[in-house]
Amino acid sequence: MPSNPVDEHGASHFVRPDFDRIRRKGVPEVILADRKTVEDSLAIARQFLEREGRAILSRVPEALEARLRQDFDGQASLEWYPGARAAVLRAPGQPRPDTGGRVGIVSAGTSDIPRAEEAALVCREMGCRVYTVYDVGVAGLHRLFDPLERLLNEDQVDVMIVAAGMDGALPSVVSGLVPVPVIGLPTSVGYGLGGGGVTALLSMLQTCAPGLSVVNIDNGIGAGATAGLIANRVAAARQAHT
Amino acid sequence: MPSNPVDEHGASHFVRPDFDRIRRKGVPEVILADRKTVEDSLAIARQFLEREGRAILSRVPEALEARLRQDFDGQASLEWYPGARAAVLRAPGQPRPDTGGRVGIVSAGTSDIPRAEEAALVCREMGCRVYTVYDVGVAGLHRLFDPLERLLNEDQVDVMIVAAGMDGALPSVVSGLVPVPVIGLPTSVGYGLGGGGVTALLSMLQTCAPGLSVVNIDNGIGAGATAGLIANRVAAARQAHT
Amino acid sequence: MPSNPVDEHGASHFVRPDFDRIRRKGVPEVILADRKTVEDSLAIARQFLEREGRAILSRVPEALEARLRQDFDGQASLEWYPGARAAVLRAPGQPRPDTGGRVGIVSAGTSDIPRAEEAALVCREMGCRVYTVYDVGVAGLHRLFDPLERLLNEDQVDVMIVAAGMDGALPSVVSGLVPVPVIGLPTSVGYGLGGGGVTALLSMLQTCAPGLSVVNIDNGIGAGATAGLIANRVAAARQAHT
Amino acid sequence: MPSNPVDEHGASHFVRPDFDRIRRKGVPEVILADRKTVEDSLAIARQFLEREGRAILSRVPEALEARLRQDFDGQASLEWYPGARAAVLRAPGQPRPDTGGRVGIVSAGTSDIPRAEEAALVCREMGCRVYTVYDVGVAGLHRLFDPLERLLNEDQVDVMIVAAGMDGALPSVVSGLVPVPVIGLPTSVGYGLGGGGVTALLSMLQTCAPGLSVVNIDNGIGAGATAGLIANRVAAARQAHT
Amino acid sequence: MPSNPVDEHGASHFVRPDFDRIRRKGVPEVILADRKTVEDSLAIARQFLEREGRAILSRVPEALEARLRQDFDGQASLEWYPGARAAVLRAPGQPRPDTGGRVGIVSAGTSDIPRAEEAALVCREMGCRVYTVYDVGVAGLHRLFDPLERLLNEDQVDVMIVAAGMDGALPSVVSGLVPVPVIGLPTSVGYGLGGGGVTALLSMLQTCAPGLSVVNIDNGIGAGATAGLIANRVAAARQAHT
Amino acid sequence: MPSNPVDEHGASHFVRPDFDRIRRKGVPEVILADRKTVEDSLAIARQFLEREGRAILSRVPEALEARLRQDFDGQASLEWYPGARAAVLRAPGQPRPDTGGRVGIVSAGTSDIPRAEEAALVCREMGCRVYTVYDVGVAGLHRLFDPLERLLNEDQVDVMIVAAGMDGALPSVVSGLVPVPVIGLPTSVGYGLGGGGVTALLSMLQTCAPGLSVVNIDNGIGAGATAGLIANRVAAARQAHT
Amino acid sequence: MPSNPVDEHGASHFVRPDFDRIRRKGVPEVILADRKTVEDSLAIARQFLEREGRAILSRVPEALEARLRQDFDGQASLEWYPGARAAVLRAPGQPRPDTGGRVGIVSAGTSDIPRAEEAALVCREMGCRVYTVYDVGVAGLHRLFDPLERLLNEDQVDVMIVAAGMDGALPSVVSGLVPVPVIGLPTSVGYGLGGGGVTALLSMLQTCAPGLSVVNIDNGIGAGATAGLIANRVAAARQAHT
Amino acid sequence: MPSNPVDEHGASHFVRPDFDRIRRKGVPEVILADRKTVEDSLAIARQFLEREGRAILSRVPEALEARLRQDFDGQASLEWYPGARAAVLRAPGQPRPDTGGRVGIVSAGTSDIPRAEEAALVCREMGCRVYTVYDVGVAGLHRLFDPLERLLNEDQVDVMIVAAGMDGALPSVVSGLVPVPVIGLPTSVGYGLGGGGVTALLSMLQTCAPGLSVVNIDNGIGAGATAGLIANRVAAARQAHT
Repeated sequence: MPSNPVDEHGASHFVRPDFDRIRRKGVPEVILADRKTVEDSLAIARQFLEREGRAILSRVPEALEARLRQDFDGQASLEWYPGARAAVLRAPGQPRPDTGGRVGIVSAGTSDIPRAEEAALVCREMGCRVYTVYDVGVAGLHRLFDPLERLLNEDQVDVMIVAAGMDGALPSVVSGLVPVPVIGLPTSVGYGLGGGGVTALLSMLQTCAPGLSVVNIDNGIGAGATAGLIANRVAAARQAHT
Repeated sequence: MPSNPVDEHGASHFVRPDFDRIRRKGVPEVILADRKTVEDSLAIARQFLEREGRAILSRVPEALEARLRQDFDGQASLEWYPGARAAVLRAPGQPRPDTGGRVGIVSAGTSDIPRAEEAALVCREMGCRVYTVYDVGVAGLHRLFDPLERLLNEDQVDVMIVAAGMDGALPSVVSGLVPVPVIGLPTSVGYGLGGGGVTALLSMLQTCAPGLSVVNIDNGIGAGATAGLIANRVAAARQAHT
Repeated sequence: MPSNPVDEHGASHFVRPDFDRIRRKGVPEVILADRKTVEDSLAIARQFLEREGRAILSRVPEALEARLRQDFDGQASLEWYPGARAAVLRAPGQPRPDTGGRVGIVSAGTSDIPRAEEAALVCREMGCRVYTVYDVGVAGLHRLFDPLERLLNEDQVDVMIVAAGMDGALPSVVSGLVPVPVIGLPTSVGYGLGGGGVTALLSMLQTCAPGLSVVNIDNGIGAGATAGLIANRVAAARQAHT
Repeated sequence: MPSNPVDEHGASHFVRPDFDRIRRKGVPEVILADRKTVEDSLAIARQFLEREGRAILSRVPEALEARLRQDFDGQASLEWYPGARAAVLRAPGQPRPDTGGRVGIVSAGTSDIPRAEEAALVCREMGCRVYTVYDVGVAGLHRLFDPLERLLNEDQVDVMIVAAGMDGALPSVVSGLVPVPVIGLPTSVGYGLGGGGVTALLSMLQTCAPGLSVVNIDNGIGAGATAGLIANRVAAARQAHT
Repeated sequence: MPSNPVDEHGASHFVRPDFDRIRRKGVPEVILADRKTVEDSLAIARQFLEREGRAILSRVPEALEARLRQDFDGQASLEWYPGARAAVLRAPGQPRPDTGGRVGIVSAGTSDIPRAEEAALVCREMGCRVYTVYDVGVAGLHRLFDPLERLLNEDQVDVMIVAAGMDGALPSVVSGLVPVPVIGLPTSVGYGLGGGGVTALLSMLQTCAPGLSVVNIDNGIGAGATAGLIANRVAAARQAHT
Repeated sequence: MPSNPVDEHGASHFVRPDFDRIRRKGVPEVILADRKTVEDSLAIARQFLEREGRAILSRVPEALEARLRQDFDGQASLEWYPGARAAVLRAPGQPRPDTGGRVGIVSAGTSDIPRAEEAALVCREMGCRVYTVYDVGVAGLHRLFDPLERLLNEDQVDVMIVAAGMDGALPSVVSGLVPVPVIGLPTSVGYGLGGGGVTALLSMLQTCAPGLSVVNIDNGIGAGATAGLIANRVAAARQAHT
Repeated sequence: MPSNPVDEHGASHFVRPDFDRIRRKGVPEVILADRKTVEDSLAIARQFLEREGRAILSRVPEALEARLRQDFDGQASLEWYPGARAAVLRAPGQPRPDTGGRVGIVSAGTSDIPRAEEAALVCREMGCRVYTVYDVGVAGLHRLFDPLERLLNEDQVDVMIVAAGMDGALPSVVSGLVPVPVIGLPTSVGYGLGGGGVTALLSMLQTCAPGLSVVNIDNGIGAGATAGLIANRVAAARQAHT
Repeated sequence: MPSNPVDEHGASHFVRPDFDRIRRKGVPEVILADRKTVEDSLAIARQFLEREGRAILSRVPEALEARLRQDFDGQASLEWYPGARAAVLRAPGQPRPDTGGRVGIVSAGTSDIPRAEEAALVCREMGCRVYTVYDVGVAGLHRLFDPLERLLNEDQVDVMIVAAGMDGALPSVVSGLVPVPVIGLPTSVGYGLGGGGVTALLSMLQTCAPGLSVVNIDNGIGAGATAGLIANRVAAARQAHT
């Protein structure tokens, strides 16, 4: 972290980091490692591990992945999500939470999976059960109906995340077919005019299907947090009365 | 509706309207009256009233408002939302649904109220109880804390809609403070570069606050549908176990 | 047409209008009446009627419609397309062409019909048979399969035009299901960010479905011309060998 | 392909890839190799080769090119398109299809050739005969007329693809001169404001020439698929009656 | 002109208008009447008439046209350009300047004529001879060669202005064929994506033809001023030596 | 203000208006009258007049102007700013504040004066003395030096606001010449690409001149508030020590 | 610096650099080193050091940093700002100026610190005292009030700079709470639609809070110069009377 | 150049390159070397050298520069423009043309020099004499007047090119002061919103100064060609009469 030689008091007035967000909001902090140095990421991860018994890192560069595997060996278990290049460090004896919330995650193409996996990771660390269906293109809709039915009737999901790039049509199609709220997760897949996920996002904003809300391009973390909050509110209502 | 003299079969192949959407999705159809002729709007309203016992119209021009008051007098009750210029026609004996879902709606400025009211109307017609706090600007945050606390602790809302134009900062601020999912509803209030609601929408997409998802500019109907689906899923869980 | 007092030769050097385009290209000229005065539109229509035995006008203002009905009474038959507000004046004894080309036209919503009708009109005046299916939303895909099957198997269309606004998803969905070329026709239906047809156009450009090409927003005339050229090339091949 | 440790069923719900698209749509799947690892591309290519007797890869990185030449030596013939950096692997005894469709491809500048070649490749693998004219600039139109006449009268093409970057004027010019449908293929050639192919695409959308439809920037594959569908529909009509 | 009650000195510090620009720059001031009140326009016109013996007004509303015809009757001659809705008031005995500069003006379509006429007016009031060719579309290039040859060989223009809307291709085409500098004048003709003249301007900026420079959309006045400056510099060189 | 029939408590939860902003921030609230009904504007003005002894209204429609003159006759004095169409109602005996702050306001063209006047009005109501120079174009810089010198040396302004539309060059030029902070106020003057004030704003953001900060297009109120805060801070320092 | 072999006079007409800007404007020149070669930056730094007794460099690449430490060793002291990667070289005996101006700098997140530090550096070299509060997110507003109160009451700052990326909400929030002018400094932090600082800038332009003006994205130097000019004007008034 | 195995005639139909452009248009072809392989650039340069006695290359990578110096040693002289990284190869005995045209080139900052030099190179190879003034910022206008006067009165230039990035204000300022036509050359210098030359281009399009026309960002070649055509037309008129 940069020093700050220009302050009159001779010391930076850093406000303290926000460790209590998970208690206030129910959503864990995720360390975005791609804009930090390896050493900074390791230091912050260690802080979270000590205070919370868990540290979550996403967009982990290869050099950091190696250090995570090495530095925390014996001190914490490491769960690795290869698509999202994300990691969960968990202190010994620290269980993963289980709220009973149920989230379905659907992705349109192979390239959307990393972001779908980020969302899944966040939901899981918020205590939800996650059910996934990957690689369901709009250009062959007949392949969509069976998986959706299983998610609804068998897995009984409380909310769905649908990830899509390119024309971003899948979330609208799904939202037109299912009775649960749908979070559209546009991914930065696309090319030419409207590429990089812009068309995917715009399509979801212009949807005719009721009950679809969206997050920004590639914001798997945010989609997961929203879905987790919804599913956990439902789960809490279920449990409150059992 | 336009005739279609160019079809070889001598008749338009109009697919039938989607009357069963409310059963499939749980969200009622809303007739957007500002792009239709008065006669078309009246005809469609009549169809819905007959089949569903209810017709919902939004963005009602003055000429249509007069006709709604006159034509359905004695056949249906009329609820009028002056901010949104929206109307609900309800057949005699047809009760408003009551699911027990609880929705909070917050608006940043006076100009955002029409869209907030659209959202409230949809939630209510989906059976939810709606709790509103209007005109809470970011440029005076000290006035925000009390109303939020009341919505959370007293009204116990399951989800919040926060409507804002201009810089669209309020939904992020609220989402950073409350533990329920928040739907950001950008309104077309603003001027100059980034005006017309564009900045408000972008701000909500760029939020640092977890658990905020958004709909398109001025899409009060869509924000209401999403919030209603969430609240009703929670309410159903509550009721299933009582 | 404006005078031009500034030319040294004392007269405007107007190059002659392009009456022979239909012979060179096989596509009739359409007079866009909304940017012309009523008198100018009438004069040009008269010119075409005299030379070609037919004049086609689109986006006809009400004042011009009245004059068309009145001025050409007895001199030409008038076909009126109410959705597109388009007109065909045809000289007595002048038959509509018949090439045997077969075009299917699908529209997503009611608001897309005027542009779909423009396309239909052009195809028909190029000699094609036109088969239409209107108001097939993506938010209820189960209603799409039957009409498509009829267009393909019963009507045996050579090419399809699919008109859509909002998220513009329908052309991709259709193009993923049918074995004929599809022309995407985005319409200026939509609101907020990406509204006015922009998202619809971008979605069609970002399609994953092979065989979809597009025209600009609301360019029903151009979509019709392209589809007509394709269908007529096929029809010519059919006839050449019968 | 990424593992998916977060699914409750302990296994990814991958929907199966779309091998039957060529039978449903008549357009072969093309493997875009630039966003995949070499190993992934090789694995998918092997799958297609086994099932379809052919695998098509485009945007092949140098490392993959070397592996294609080496790994499939003796098992499949390799056709290499140097401009497009595309490859066709063909199983022994598997003939290239021949439908009798006839496609003309015109490019404005040298830089447009890679995309023109992608289109040519797709058309050819759909069974069409392809006739090309490359490097015909708008800034010297007198050089355009002879090649177009040869394409129309000698080669008798059913459809043309015209590739252009920069100001994208060539497709409009060509479409104003020829009686067959034209597919505009904008390429990412250009600089400054409106660069990267944006102006080329916009110009084609704003064309005054009837019968021009477009695909997205650099979408040679899509332009080829559309032209192939058109030409093959015409060819089928020709053959049906011979 | 608005009063300014808030200045401490009790009076507005208005800097004096720029009457000497024509002497410094050789380009006359043109009064844009569409953003002024009729009375303001008349007052400014009277000022110019008194000082310069001439006043030029463009984009003249109908009410102002009537007043110009009436108020200055007997005091100044009125030249009216109907396409541009522009007027020149000239004091008795005040001749139009004649420098010997030679300007060619070409327009692509009928809708571009008003802006072409604005340019012509400015050139003429700067003393140039103006030669015009109107309505030369790119979608029929064979009609272009004869008029260009006449402008070059017969009229011997020193510079050309080429006005075009839609895809804006004509200036590039012309600039590729003629040896004189060309000023591209994009007009606000066009629709859908890239409409309103944006594509026309971008096309001209992306031109491959050397020697084309551009002005902003609909800036006929500016195109005329630039062409007039060029032609007059050439004419001065011609005259200096005769 | 719209009623809100949908709240469960049977009453709108309107948070109270922000009357104490002037005490907290030193900037008076300005009632933007163009988006309100005449009756609403009058009601709010009356509230401010009662509590603060003053009400400021901007963008006043003609109908409201008439009512202001009529309704408050005898109860408050009315100051009218014709360029800005703004009004100050002042209760009898309520003096205009006088802080001793000194603000210079420069405008590039006549069309920028309304916004410059809005800024002047706010500064004056914050107690500043305002010195103005209007209609100083960049296209004749020699006319700029004298007025600037007078503002600096004679009027001794603490801060300058420079209003400009079109290319927005004036604020950069001024900021390169004067030693006081400059607020750039872009106005919605301009046309074609980058019109409506967008280029003016971008130019100010891209300035090479140090010490220039900007507000949004046409935000005269905001420019005045910023300049007033700066000038008043300086004036307070001056007075504190006298 | 490039040679210029094409000038007729055989020598470049380079106008001399602007060494006297600090005297004219009170803002020191900062050498942006990231677009220059190491040798060019060193040469210019040496020039400033000789003439002004100080050289300021920002965005210093690592190679240049090494050279600065090495080449000027013994000739000048080096102050290094690690966040901004900026350096101040100061000749022996040359004191840092001290005007008594007081500037507060607040940053929203860790990523905004480099730009905040650039601003701080400029203010300090203009003689101001700088007081900083870093890492104050909007998504936890309760942590904001204490630091602001200290800046206002204890440090008595004359002006504040607030740096923020993402949704850029913090400057509006701060400006709504404090009575001093605020300079919004948007940083290029953000992703997806509206990323790279665009939303942050737009939010600040759309602010509802009075007294907020802005500079372009990442323009820490410009924000510092503006704040320094304001603070120094106040300080001069304070000193003039003491 | 890529082979083209897909053409039915077994050979690519390459239209021949445009060697006669210099005779038709008077503007030499410039080989843009940054998008070509070193070998391709060398081959094309050799072709031009043989046919025209000269080859011009711009944006020359270092590897190509080395090869140019080595491969043509003894066969052609090499003139190297270090700012533009451009080269002119000239066959022995081939003189540089001399038309007597006179071009002034002004640049705003050091970063604009490479593009200014490209323009100078083209003008010179078209036979013009070029007079340059570099590094004249708008943020210090007092330094501008002397150089302009020398260009006009002493060097008697027929046309000026003014290169500027950032806010692009210099061309407008110059065009408001000089009586010759001005070509605005925006450069890709700038940052944040409107960066990369976009604001510079827009500013020039929005200019209030008459007689300014523009080319696209960084198009030094095009600016030079336009200025060269103008100056040569003037020079020809001068010579015709001597």
